[in-house]
Amino acid sequence: MQATDLRHISESVLAQLAEVDAIFKEELISDLSCVNDLVDHVGRLRGKMLRPLLVLLSGQAAGELTPHHPTIAAVVEMVHMATLVHDDVLDEADLRRNGATINRLRGNEAAVMLGDYLISHSYHLCSRLRSQHAARVIARTTNQLCEGELLQLHNRGNLDLDEEIYLTIISRKTASLIAASCYLGAQMAGADEATAKRFEKYGLSLGIAFQIQDDVLDLIGDVRSVGKTLGIDVEKCKLTLPLIHFLRNAPEEHQALCRSLLAANEPSTADRVKKLVAPSDSITYARDRALRLVERAKQSLDGLPMNDALAALLALADFAIERAV
Amino acid sequence: MQATDLRHISESVLAQLAEVDAIFKEELISDLSCVNDLVDHVGRLRGKMLRPLLVLLSGQAAGELTPHHPTIAAVVEMVHMATLVHDDVLDEADLRRNGATINRLRGNEAAVMLGDYLISHSYHLCSRLRSQHAARVIARTTNQLCEGELLQLHNRGNLDLDEEIYLTIISRKTASLIAASCYLGAQMAGADEATAKRFEKYGLSLGIAFQIQDDVLDLIGDVRSVGKTLGIDVEKCKLTLPLIHFLRNAPEEHQALCRSLLAANEPSTADRVKKLVAPSDSITYARDRALRLVERAKQSLDGLPMNDALAALLALADFAIERAV
Repeated sequence: MQATDLRHISESVLAQLAEVDAIFKEELISDLSCVNDLVDHVGRLRGKMLRPLLVLLSGQAAGELTPHHPTIAAVVEMVHMATLVHDDVLDEADLRRNGATINRLRGNEAAVMLGDYLISHSYHLCSRLRSQHAARVIARTTNQLCEGELLQLHNRGNLDLDEEIYLTIISRKTASLIAASCYLGAQMAGADEATAKRFEKYGLSLGIAFQIQDDVLDLIGDVRSVGKTLGIDVEKCKLTLPLIHFLRNAPEEHQALCRSLLAANEPSTADRVKKLVAPSDSITYARDRALRLVERAKQSLDGLPMNDALAALLALADFAIERAV
Repeated sequence: MQATDLRHISESVLAQLAEVDAIFKEELISDLSCVNDLVDHVGRLRGKMLRPLLVLLSGQAAGELTPHHPTIAAVVEMVHMATLVHDDVLDEADLRRNGATINRLRGNEAAVMLGDYLISHSYHLCSRLRSQHAARVIARTTNQLCEGELLQLHNRGNLDLDEEIYLTIISRKTASLIAASCYLGAQMAGADEATAKRFEKYGLSLGIAFQIQDDVLDLIGDVRSVGKTLGIDVEKCKLTLPLIHFLRNAPEEHQALCRSLLAANEPSTADRVKKLVAPSDSITYARDRALRLVERAKQSLDGLPMNDALAALLALADFAIERAV
């Protein structure tokens, strides 16, 4: 599935997506030109607006969009941008969406503060809404997001990391925000709590699948088609699903070689690990896992009245694991 | 004025300060032990609880404390802690309150994420309150705070920085949160908007004075009595009030020497600049400026009905520029 398919999926909410974009830009304007110059870089980092799209489609699938939907969609996009900026600092990444990262362009200090500026404005935008409910959900989500990042950091270099901790990490650092986007979209459109929770489950499964796919790409993807620095997980010795599986299930001599490559952590490690793991069952295992999660995501919405937005959400779930970018 | 005086100032709100402390700790508890281990370091960074004290005293001075006061006091303390943690990353500082900084102990990545965890939880705590008003004020304040930091970063190495930009920097990065603490304290205690704004003005002047004093100490203070890494401003080529004054008003040959020392930025620079500036009029100039701001802070509260809390706020203003720590 390609970008054209994503455009098709977004069709029913194009006007609202444009509004999200306008709110996003308006919110970040400062009276200080040096701040605006730095914020300009963020525009280039922005991608497919997956999270705003989920807020809007979940809203349309569950009921009717309200004037609050574009605001909350801008909020989740801004939170996401903040995490990208700080993630790149943590990873010392140079490349993101085929361009230089903020830390690369302007230094770590500016990237740390720009991330803070984005997160502050996301809460500021949230505080515009009449009810505290969304703010509570967003803040709980960013708590989880930070916990996921901290757990991942704590497990750098842990070659015995198991699937359970890996799943806790990615559930919190990635899936929590995607789940919250779907939940809030449905809930603000008037869905009852039980229905909104089904959208949340959809988002959670989708988010985990999405991150597994991201991790597979980091390991074996092609930098030109993915458009960001790859091999970072191996370089930073962050074990992801294919590697966790490989270190437990590959032929013993392959396990031992992989383990010693990771422990040595030399400049050639990422390439050598890639060559070792790419042809193995472990890639298939991780992809199957993602596929099953996508099925589970779709099942969460089973039985809801079908409409265009619901169909788009089902298509989006497939897109999550077929994308190369 | 010594720590004993600060204890005297805090006397009327000791019970509430204990409550603030309990809320602060409770809010940060995670189900992940690695997160709790990291958060434990924050306890050691905590100091005199100036901002919670201002929330509570402003409340008592302007009306009656509510159950919301300790919560908002914990919020501002948490925001402050987050800025300290990220500030130390930006400054590459090793020492804070006579102990190692988080970045020194656990690396920059953990410090970035811990700061994010603190800021996320501060908004989470804020979202507990019934009204959105406090959340709006806090988010607007953190926006300003980030702008101040970004403006400062932008002006690193700018030897022509003038007083006006310097005042914009410190108003936003330091005084804004102190002003918000006083404003919210008064406003939540039932003060009308005009009165709450007087408390805000008190906090703004006090905060600027406080930062000028901090900057004087960074330049000429003694590391043992101040308890944190000093000379950072010079090392990072951040011009502060005494230096800005010196570079425009000292005898010309002193100006030239200072300028060339700063431009060279060698390991001995901080010491040599200290020896050059310490005996000059520029220190007196900065201190006088702080003193006048403290007077202005006190004047903002002129004519309000006197009570113990108001007297404590007036004493606190004097404390701000007499402290060595």
